[in-house]
Amino acid sequence: MPVNPAPRAYQIVLQAIEEDLRTEKLSVGDQLPGERALAEQHGISRASVRDAIRILDVMGIIKTSTGSGPNSGAVIVSNPSAGISQALRLHLAAKGINVREIVESRILLETWAAQMNPRDPIHAQQVIDRTAVLIMRMDDAQLSREAFHRIDAEFHVLLASMAGNAVVESMMESLRNSISDYVAASIPDDESWQPIVRVLRRQHKAIHHAFATNQRERAAQLLEEHINWFYSQTR
Amino acid sequence: MPVNPAPRAYQIVLQAIEEDLRTEKLSVGDQLPGERALAEQHGISRASVRDAIRILDVMGIIKTSTGSGPNSGAVIVSNPSAGISQALRLHLAAKGINVREIVESRILLETWAAQMNPRDPIHAQQVIDRTAVLIMRMDDAQLSREAFHRIDAEFHVLLASMAGNAVVESMMESLRNSISDYVAASIPDDESWQPIVRVLRRQHKAIHHAFATNQRERAAQLLEEHINWFYSQTR
Repeated sequence: MPVNPAPRAYQIVLQAIEEDLRTEKLSVGDQLPGERALAEQHGISRASVRDAIRILDVMGIIKTSTGSGPNSGAVIVSNPSAGISQALRLHLAAKGINVREIVESRILLETWAAQMNPRDPIHAQQVIDRTAVLIMRMDDAQLSREAFHRIDAEFHVLLASMAGNAVVESMMESLRNSISDYVAASIPDDESWQPIVRVLRRQHKAIHHAFATNQRERAAQLLEEHINWFYSQTR
Repeated sequence: MPVNPAPRAYQIVLQAIEEDLRTEKLSVGDQLPGERALAEQHGISRASVRDAIRILDVMGIIKTSTGSGPNSGAVIVSNPSAGISQALRLHLAAKGINVREIVESRILLETWAAQMNPRDPIHAQQVIDRTAVLIMRMDDAQLSREAFHRIDAEFHVLLASMAGNAVVESMMESLRNSISDYVAASIPDDESWQPIVRVLRRQHKAIHHAFATNQRERAAQLLEEHINWFYSQTR
């Protein structure tokens, strides 16, 4: 049975859209041309165009909506972490990537970002302020574990954003998202979670203090210890 | 016009396959169940199953083949760099991420990989041997610029693979691929290219020598200088 009767016709559309994005014929917020227009333009079937649109959707390049109003159809969004996370998650599951590699990569990106001189001091100050709020929210004893993990991820991604490198930030966000389920599943119950969360809170505060007082090397070192310690608890 | 008439039915299949991979009901080398079986199992249309299969294909989770023999159909492969490259390329194009961020990220990943102790000494020796062959091929005066860039990219990705971290390798490959067209376009003619390529050949040989003699810090330093120098020539 041929699983893929028209192999890779959709690749033509993916390549053309990549080119249009690169040359800014298409930008974030623009509507993608309709299925029929794309099919005619590239001389391929509408079914192949639909494949390309689904792939762009999964990769976080577009957001599709149903309906027939003026705002229906596919809009360019570029949400890198959604798409890259999905690929990373699947490869992690398939054992093409293991948790060690993800932890190693997180440490690499986060400690690098901590040691960089912030590109934009105003943004850096905003990060300090916003992460202080996140620390307060993570102190709430009523907070669910799921909510804690979400705020925790936001805390790390925000700190990594200080360096002002969108590539590093996207990679960091994807890595963080790709393992959250494994992490959640690896701590079996609330009783095991309580002593862990106390240490995490203390570590977060020390990391925040190092950033706020501009002790960059110290912040990098605390981040590395924090990431390694946490994964040692989840295995 | 509804672009996505059955939104995200394919997500059911993606999630189920991720779960089967995680619990090792499916492993690399296994055949994916047929379209009909997956459709019945999840109560969705065969068209939605086909969407999921195409997405898995683009993400490098499966390899599909046409035909009707016993080996036709989709086989689990887990080739992370293929899938992540595609997502990163599109987002780099969409976000208009600047060359500085890409150069910075390349230096981060490549110098890190250079300084790591190779996880697998046999693979490390293979990389030394294969990159020696690539250096010889890049010495060919008849080589087109396009072919040079392709071999050059392979050289850098191979060296980065020594560290044995598939996440870093995939990101490196994506970054390298994502900018090759910009690089090619930024050197206007063969006359400007000739003096550049002579320096690149010399730098590649010095980098290779540092790896081959296990001077890891030196290799990292030479890589950083090489990457920075090349981009200074292309702007």
